Amino acid sequence: MTWKISRSSLRENDLLLNESLFALGNGYLGVRGNFEEGYPEDIRSIRGTYINAFHDETEISYGEKLHAFPDTQQKLVNIIDAQDIKIEIDGELFSLFTGKIQSYEQHLHFDAGFSERLIHWVSPSGKEVKLHFRRLISFALKELFLMDIKVEPVSDIKEIKIVSSVNGDVSNYVDKKDPRVASGHAKRTFVKEAGKQDAYSFIRNETMVTKLEVACVSETIIDAEAGYRYNSGVTDKAVEETYICDGSSPVHFTKFNIYTDTLRHQEKLVETGIGLLQRIKGAIFEDFVVEQTAYLDNFWSNSDVMIAGDEQLQEGIRFNLFQLLQSVGKDPVSNIAAKGLSGEGYEGHYFWDTEIYMFPVFLMTNPDLAKNLLIQRYSTLDSARQRALEMGHSKGALFPWRTITGTESSAFFPAGTAQYHISADIAYSYIQYFLATTDVDFLKEYMAEVLFETARLWMETGHMYEGQFRIDNVTGPDEYTCIVNNNYYTNVMAKHNLTWAVKAYKLLEEVDGVQLDQLKTALSLDEQEVNDWLLAGENMYLPFDEKLGINAQDDTFLQKRRWDIPGTPKEKFPLLLNYHPLTLYRYQVCKQADTILGHFLLEDEQSLETIRKSYDYYEQVTTHDSSLSYCIFSIMASKLGYQRKAYDYFMKTARLDLDNMHGNTKDGLHMANMGGTWMAIVYGFAGLRLKETGLSFSPVIPEKWETASFNLQFQNRQLAVTMEKDGISYWLKSGEALTFRHFDQAVTLESGQSVKISTDSGEPDKSLAVV
Amino acid sequence: MTWKISRSSLRENDLLLNESLFALGNGYLGVRGNFEEGYPEDIRSIRGTYINAFHDETEISYGEKLHAFPDTQQKLVNIIDAQDIKIEIDGELFSLFTGKIQSYEQHLHFDAGFSERLIHWVSPSGKEVKLHFRRLISFALKELFLMDIKVEPVSDIKEIKIVSSVNGDVSNYVDKKDPRVASGHAKRTFVKEAGKQDAYSFIRNETMVTKLEVACVSETIIDAEAGYRYNSGVTDKAVEETYICDGSSPVHFTKFNIYTDTLRHQEKLVETGIGLLQRIKGAIFEDFVVEQTAYLDNFWSNSDVMIAGDEQLQEGIRFNLFQLLQSVGKDPVSNIAAKGLSGEGYEGHYFWDTEIYMFPVFLMTNPDLAKNLLIQRYSTLDSARQRALEMGHSKGALFPWRTITGTESSAFFPAGTAQYHISADIAYSYIQYFLATTDVDFLKEYMAEVLFETARLWMETGHMYEGQFRIDNVTGPDEYTCIVNNNYYTNVMAKHNLTWAVKAYKLLEEVDGVQLDQLKTALSLDEQEVNDWLLAGENMYLPFDEKLGINAQDDTFLQKRRWDIPGTPKEKFPLLLNYHPLTLYRYQVCKQADTILGHFLLEDEQSLETIRKSYDYYEQVTTHDSSLSYCIFSIMASKLGYQRKAYDYFMKTARLDLDNMHGNTKDGLHMANMGGTWMAIVYGFAGLRLKETGLSFSPVIPEKWETASFNLQFQNRQLAVTMEKDGISYWLKSGEALTFRHFDQAVTLESGQSVKISTDSGEPDKSLAVV
Repeated sequence: MTWKISRSSLRENDLLLNESLFALGNGYLGVRGNFEEGYPEDIRSIRGTYINAFHDETEISYGEKLHAFPDTQQKLVNIIDAQDIKIEIDGELFSLFTGKIQSYEQHLHFDAGFSERLIHWVSPSGKEVKLHFRRLISFALKELFLMDIKVEPVSDIKEIKIVSSVNGDVSNYVDKKDPRVASGHAKRTFVKEAGKQDAYSFIRNETMVTKLEVACVSETIIDAEAGYRYNSGVTDKAVEETYICDGSSPVHFTKFNIYTDTLRHQEKLVETGIGLLQRIKGAIFEDFVVEQTAYLDNFWSNSDVMIAGDEQLQEGIRFNLFQLLQSVGKDPVSNIAAKGLSGEGYEGHYFWDTEIYMFPVFLMTNPDLAKNLLIQRYSTLDSARQRALEMGHSKGALFPWRTITGTESSAFFPAGTAQYHISADIAYSYIQYFLATTDVDFLKEYMAEVLFETARLWMETGHMYEGQFRIDNVTGPDEYTCIVNNNYYTNVMAKHNLTWAVKAYKLLEEVDGVQLDQLKTALSLDEQEVNDWLLAGENMYLPFDEKLGINAQDDTFLQKRRWDIPGTPKEKFPLLLNYHPLTLYRYQVCKQADTILGHFLLEDEQSLETIRKSYDYYEQVTTHDSSLSYCIFSIMASKLGYQRKAYDYFMKTARLDLDNMHGNTKDGLHMANMGGTWMAIVYGFAGLRLKETGLSFSPVIPEKWETASFNLQFQNRQLAVTMEKDGISYWLKSGEALTFRHFDQAVTLESGQSVKISTDSGEPDKSLAVV
Repeated sequence: MTWKISRSSLRENDLLLNESLFALGNGYLGVRGNFEEGYPEDIRSIRGTYINAFHDETEISYGEKLHAFPDTQQKLVNIIDAQDIKIEIDGELFSLFTGKIQSYEQHLHFDAGFSERLIHWVSPSGKEVKLHFRRLISFALKELFLMDIKVEPVSDIKEIKIVSSVNGDVSNYVDKKDPRVASGHAKRTFVKEAGKQDAYSFIRNETMVTKLEVACVSETIIDAEAGYRYNSGVTDKAVEETYICDGSSPVHFTKFNIYTDTLRHQEKLVETGIGLLQRIKGAIFEDFVVEQTAYLDNFWSNSDVMIAGDEQLQEGIRFNLFQLLQSVGKDPVSNIAAKGLSGEGYEGHYFWDTEIYMFPVFLMTNPDLAKNLLIQRYSTLDSARQRALEMGHSKGALFPWRTITGTESSAFFPAGTAQYHISADIAYSYIQYFLATTDVDFLKEYMAEVLFETARLWMETGHMYEGQFRIDNVTGPDEYTCIVNNNYYTNVMAKHNLTWAVKAYKLLEEVDGVQLDQLKTALSLDEQEVNDWLLAGENMYLPFDEKLGINAQDDTFLQKRRWDIPGTPKEKFPLLLNYHPLTLYRYQVCKQADTILGHFLLEDEQSLETIRKSYDYYEQVTTHDSSLSYCIFSIMASKLGYQRKAYDYFMKTARLDLDNMHGNTKDGLHMANMGGTWMAIVYGFAGLRLKETGLSFSPVIPEKWETASFNLQFQNRQLAVTMEKDGISYWLKSGEALTFRHFDQAVTLESGQSVKISTDSGEPDKSLAVV
């Protein structure tokens, strides 16, 4: 059960929301859940089709442009629209906004990977039809966007006309008032070619500046028992096909759209598209559903989280995992955008969201997808080196705050470029990958170099002062407090980065001295530099307030006035849309987890008491205006035994988009939060940690649940975890024997072996009982 | 002597520079020193005519726009060009870039207030003429820009043709690469009307957004002994008049241009212009020189500083004072732009430069002009209140960092809006005015309200923490260190502001309780608020570093790494053009005087030892990339007895523009630095201070000078000060008896009385000797 979401509202705000919720994608191609038949003029719709990383470049305007402010930024481009299919019933255009809707349902299937709309419609003049729209973006054939429509006459109908088009005259969505959405540069792509070749309609577009090309080749098939007439027309921007069918019997229309682009395909995009269509000739919608289901079966067998006892929650969790899969880039040029492929918010950019909020999900369930994310980042290392130089550093790599291809696309540096922590976040994800896979080739090929170059950045950014290594003028995760000295999060992550750079150096020395020497030569790296990293890491200054017994978010955060959060009217949230940044900076008020996140990622850096006191303190000054916040507060509440809080924060993540809790899901889904949902279960309730010492769990099942279970991949093993009221079961489904910790107890399982550890009145029973 | 500057270079870079140096203005109208005859296409020229405060509004583009970022900014508009006069000698166009220049001189007269060019030219075909161009912008008739040209044939010449035009098709200058110059919005004004009426040519333009209008009405007069023919033509954007004169005798051409605008004149701009021309009918250039000279005699008698022993220096000082007079707004809508009326740098905006660097000159020499500056600021108080609300404050007035009409025009808040200190700077200038005039009406009408509203801003911005009043997240004067906590300068100025708000309250209570009550009602002000001001002022936190014995520029400045200034290549200065702001923020490196400026303005807040140590410290980390820096370092060097330094810094101010020391004088003169030159003499070498305790001096004449003398206005008195090697003379030229301090000695003078206090080997002899 609970393998789909369903909606039936046609209210305008719900429509925009549902366009994001019902977005389909496969990590390469994404299509928003717009209606094939379109909307009346007065109804807003954000119509969009995207290819991951397919972008144009736009100029950034500054009122005052200072040195090394980026001149341009990248922008995910809304590409050729193949969604358009008009249906006329005896001359009356079908629309959900005219006539009478006898019934309407919209579904998105997580198990079968397609969406559908079922409609029973009576036209203004009384003609009655049933319509069934289905669409699918294939995981197996990434270029394929498939649409399938059945029109069934109910009353007496003479003619059913279907007008299907492929349209290259498309623009991006703009909103001047919301800094989270692009404010200009709507038109970024132009039609280079539009035409028909045999049965294939095609459009080829080119972007304005990057000169990337995308093509859509479309083939339509009609099954009209009672006969039909066909014609087609080509304009300079669109191709239109018309089927005029006898209305006395049902009509079944299928549209196969193949998208190709110059980032992945050879130059002959249209020919490639036609070739792919020929390869799948004869297949019908159901065939692809079968294939899609097989793919998803495999995904869910690795990734599903089952919660018994709460259907709404189960729906939220599956939805989030499904959307993560739909969004994650699966080739070397793509990553996961902040909104996935579901909308244009944040212009399709990749942020630290990937490494800290989404990568962990894939790392522990689909490590190959996780690795691809790391390799995509690695492909931008040269840009990061270049950026470090531009910023005035003599060496090292500074990864951009937001980007597609690796160049900085942030136009507001205090909450952009200043977030130097992203370089340590990336290093962290490399380290986690290594811990989860012990992949020495990965260390040699990618990890050592990334760790060395990011370690260098910290040496360039920080400096020793009175025996401590300090890092001035950076911005931590909390964007309500920018450009500060010694942000705890940044410093502790930099410490980890530096320490691990030294470890990676030693590891590489052990396993492949030749490779190390080559890398040292390539990077002009010497032993002294490595010693400096060690010294800086060991002496990293981690601000701590003696009086409060907490880590200070930065050098002066705790001396500021506290924002009156309870006294601030509801409509003033999120604060960033209602207060000048300076005003926000002046207060103790956090947009999101900052120090608390540092405590999660590197929990051994502080005592449990400091972590607890810090949590209690920062919780009071955090608005959670960022969707990256709740999940971390949930995880840490679990750690601290704040079970009620852990559950409440978790519940805010699980259905954040489904219930449009941030009010802007129309611009795309909050992908990082979706990763956060999984993390709140696995890192939170189950207490997973992955350290040099291995895997560990400290599971406590929430009161409201009967059972919760999930699977993990770890060093070529499959481990299933089931949390029940009376105990926790671990089952090593495959792979070599594994020793892990359950709380402070070591547990060893052979392949195929399982264990259930009973809990006594909420407290885990440490006795090992093989069942 | 030394009442003019002269130039004869025609190198391209000198031409651009000279356009600024030879700019003429009167506080209302300004015209750059462009050549009437124009330039070849490959020679750059910034051709400009400006009316103080005559502006358009342009949209500000942000890559990422956050709440309360200004949507628009103001921009001084380049207006109708009347400079254009082409001269043809027997069909050959006169140009300094063709033919042969036998001699060329350009002069600007500080005593007579006009500029001239004397040219002996041989055309490519060998025709020889002498030309004499003169131009004047009248102080007496502010609308008048007068040009006068004499063409004297030397060789045999048949025809001298003069083509004079008034052209409304003008644009502003743009430079995408320099943040100190506008990067867009070149075309801001369009011709509404162009025509001839009787002898008058006229053009009327309107700005794009503000819909302000400006008109230029021009009348030309020819005196050609041997006869001439005349014709004229009107296009939709320009009016052209042509005189074809018999070349056998000299030709004398005069062009009277009257500029009117809707900020100052009634709607009928053209009619008003014609009326003004009729009023001066019959007057010739020399008549205006006489009038101009009379005006300037009076100015110099109040304002001149005479230095015997250094001609170059004397030239610099007079030039600077003359340009200050040419730039200062003399009506209620205008102030002094950062570049005066000499160029478009900083888009004609008014900054704190006015209050801290230029106002003091006028205050002590021409208090009426000083008062006008304060009243202009007062006229923007409502905007400042509005801005405080926008920024999230519940009350108070936040003056904009840069503006023309009073709305914030800064597009980069870290070095713009964040400079909250401007509100305290404005309060400081009000207090200084009151001390210099004891004008109770001024207190009642303007000062009390401004002090109350700015005091409120500090209460809104700062807060009590552990018994001290702290001000977080502001930017001090040093723009290489932005968004900091407890900037010493800001805090000490806020302290003064708060303390004086309380004083003003008490003073007003004494002199006019009714007025105070009205003001309290209007501002909803109660006694408790005033008590809070007192408390905040008394407990203001002024950061002090015990180890170094200096005031810390802010809470964390001293913990940062020090920038290697000597090790930075010369071409990397100014740093702001070569490093990302974040990189600069990360170091101990100051663009300009910051703490040192606080020590100058409020010297009694710290011990002399702290001031000295601070000076020694900050001098090492200051690049003086801002032209507002040297003068303050000179003044404070004088105070500290660093005579050599005082002199060296001073010398860098005196000829900063004349010698183009910052390389960007082409964009306009550095007006604040020009005020700084005077201040370095009067506040520096002569040690003037103006406090509640009265006037005081601590004069030490630089070694290289024989004598230095200047005049001051103080509480309706005229005081002349002459510094000589052997002693200092004070002469109370007019006004009631005055007691002031000479070092720690009280000196009293009756009207007309003078005193010379002898110095003994550099140390002042305290014995009073009336001479």
